[in-house]
Amino acid sequence: MADLIPHADEPPTPESAGAAIPPPAPTPGGFPVVGMIGSGQLARMSVGPAAELGITLSVLSTDAFDSAALVAAHAPVGHHADLERVVEFAQHCDVITFDHEHVPDDVLDAVAELGVPMHPSPAALRYAQDKLAMRERLGELGIPCPQWARAESVSDVVEFGDRIGWPIVAKTPRGGYDGKGVRQIRSAEDARSQISEWFDGGAVLLEERVEFVRELAILVARSPSGQAAAWPVVETVQTDSICTEVLAPAPDLVPGLAAAITEAGLRVAGELEVTGVLAVELFEVVAADGTPAFVVNELAMRPHNSGHWTMDGAVTGQFEQHLRAVLDLPLGSPRPRDRWTVMANILGGEVEELYSSYRHVMARDPEIKVHLYGKSVRPGRKLGHVNVGGTHLASLRERARHAADYIQGVIDE
Amino acid sequence: MADLIPHADEPPTPESAGAAIPPPAPTPGGFPVVGMIGSGQLARMSVGPAAELGITLSVLSTDAFDSAALVAAHAPVGHHADLERVVEFAQHCDVITFDHEHVPDDVLDAVAELGVPMHPSPAALRYAQDKLAMRERLGELGIPCPQWARAESVSDVVEFGDRIGWPIVAKTPRGGYDGKGVRQIRSAEDARSQISEWFDGGAVLLEERVEFVRELAILVARSPSGQAAAWPVVETVQTDSICTEVLAPAPDLVPGLAAAITEAGLRVAGELEVTGVLAVELFEVVAADGTPAFVVNELAMRPHNSGHWTMDGAVTGQFEQHLRAVLDLPLGSPRPRDRWTVMANILGGEVEELYSSYRHVMARDPEIKVHLYGKSVRPGRKLGHVNVGGTHLASLRERARHAADYIQGVIDE
Repeated sequence: MADLIPHADEPPTPESAGAAIPPPAPTPGGFPVVGMIGSGQLARMSVGPAAELGITLSVLSTDAFDSAALVAAHAPVGHHADLERVVEFAQHCDVITFDHEHVPDDVLDAVAELGVPMHPSPAALRYAQDKLAMRERLGELGIPCPQWARAESVSDVVEFGDRIGWPIVAKTPRGGYDGKGVRQIRSAEDARSQISEWFDGGAVLLEERVEFVRELAILVARSPSGQAAAWPVVETVQTDSICTEVLAPAPDLVPGLAAAITEAGLRVAGELEVTGVLAVELFEVVAADGTPAFVVNELAMRPHNSGHWTMDGAVTGQFEQHLRAVLDLPLGSPRPRDRWTVMANILGGEVEELYSSYRHVMARDPEIKVHLYGKSVRPGRKLGHVNVGGTHLASLRERARHAADYIQGVIDE
Repeated sequence: MADLIPHADEPPTPESAGAAIPPPAPTPGGFPVVGMIGSGQLARMSVGPAAELGITLSVLSTDAFDSAALVAAHAPVGHHADLERVVEFAQHCDVITFDHEHVPDDVLDAVAELGVPMHPSPAALRYAQDKLAMRERLGELGIPCPQWARAESVSDVVEFGDRIGWPIVAKTPRGGYDGKGVRQIRSAEDARSQISEWFDGGAVLLEERVEFVRELAILVARSPSGQAAAWPVVETVQTDSICTEVLAPAPDLVPGLAAAITEAGLRVAGELEVTGVLAVELFEVVAADGTPAFVVNELAMRPHNSGHWTMDGAVTGQFEQHLRAVLDLPLGSPRPRDRWTVMANILGGEVEELYSSYRHVMARDPEIKVHLYGKSVRPGRKLGHVNVGGTHLASLRERARHAADYIQGVIDE
């Protein structure tokens, strides 16, 4: 199962045993230090908003050449599973938050003992780390979910499939992302051949395969004092289990369903006591009575791909809002700036040199906002995204798709 | 005259003689390194846009605790007048640009010899550094200017004042900013007592005191290949010679005058071969025939206070546009996002702790965008600004003014 978990079980990198972490340079005027564990694109995109807010951002980086480490003024190298290094890092911070969900429990416990607040708290974070815990809790709250079961063995899988009908979906409770750690199981034979070894790592989550109309997401922010704000419900388009496009707001969404989803997002944030940004990924489905409805697919407790559109498309972007929330600052307005904003992800293709195609895209469309993550190209890797806002959805989708495809080398002119 | 020039003539700081400058970590994919000389708020506000664009930004910082040094991943310490240090810095950069106009000629020459492109070029920058050169050149181009003269002595001042009428305005050609290096001279006696020692530094620029209706500014960007883009003409409000408020676009500006000013801004950028952002500060005046007209007051060849509104109020902000321009990337759209955007500067007051008032402002107005520069409080010092956009100008002005005043401690509730 190690390949399913990109972060949690890796040994500390040699750099983690490096020099002592110097404190970040203080920002005058009584401004706090936010420590972010993890140095991917979410930490990177927090750098600009932190500078604008006057907040000192310190990023614990797995590697000195990580996405965020390239642009953050204070990016000490250390592995998120290296307890001593994380504690050393946290000592310089007024609050700790996260670029990903993969910090092990013993490390979270050690930071808690130190007395540095963590947002989200380990208690809340558990529901984003462990999909079985999430399903149990959402079920208690009456939040619509797919039919699900905990499986301890292949025979549990067979029992579930026979009961609700094949195919079913099996998920590792921890560590999955972008389609990894998720398998469609069509039969008892599939269960034996494909996931029997998953049980070496513990229980497995089983879910019905949801017949959905489309995928949606609701993004909310909640502060420790309980203030909350929600951006509009968006439609997310997945390609090979990776989010490739977001339409904000979700087109033709029935107002009652939009309200129900927003209420569910705010309620999950409140009941789970989430602090910071919470993304709830959902399926839009057709209820038994023929009306539109939803079930919750996944939770993430951090800025999320489904919210990248907010960087250019809302008065307050998700990275600024996350910083405000984890510092218990008053939240900013989530009001959209345009009738429609479309986000398209730039995925790695075959071409390693991106600068030429990027110039082309800028020349073709002066309104396209290009966001790059400073990552080397690997096929399928998220390298950046584009946003574009305006009034004609079909045209915006074409423009965003063209720009993303062109940068990743899918099309040439 | 040393107090008039905050940068140029200071000796190198001890840190300048420090360790060798390591190269910045490269951004994969063929992305360039922009070196910015100077580490004030303009460099600071370039950090976020550079990260988004995937550009590596390196900032030559006078001090490790300077505004930009607090937030830039690569901010080697070195003084802009330390020729060897600047050359060492420039060797790691694909292009050099500036946070201020105070780099001495010999340093510019040395970078030019190294073959690293500078934007703006020293030839263009001269017209922003030297107000006498600027007046001569604009006069040649037929761009409307106040009546002016070069004075070599007090008797030249007296001759000019007697000819065009007292009072007149005297300016040091180099190093003035925010009202420093500018004096109103009411009489021959004034000239003798107030500015006779200025002539130790060379010639002085004399100008008529312009009876203006209001102050305006036009901000344009121009790339080395000649592409140019202009934001709308704005009104700037000065208090004690410091810009305190910007209204974008300038309210009730006669369309013909707006067009003439925009044309003049683009023409100055083109004729002077400016690369990067150019700010032209102007006075709106009433012509002899009673029609609205303008004269040029000052030029700045870098992002400018009159353009801070673009960070939230335009599709492409001035810091992103400056980076695009100096890299000869296609320029982004300068289209305003709102009917009106109002910017108010936050100036230092008596209170050193800003975080509490900042929380209050965020709570009062979730749509206010607060931008802070990470500077310690000194009375009158520019510490940050706020932007707010919408449809009702009077209300936006009240909200922006309240937020700025509250943070700087002018009002309390």
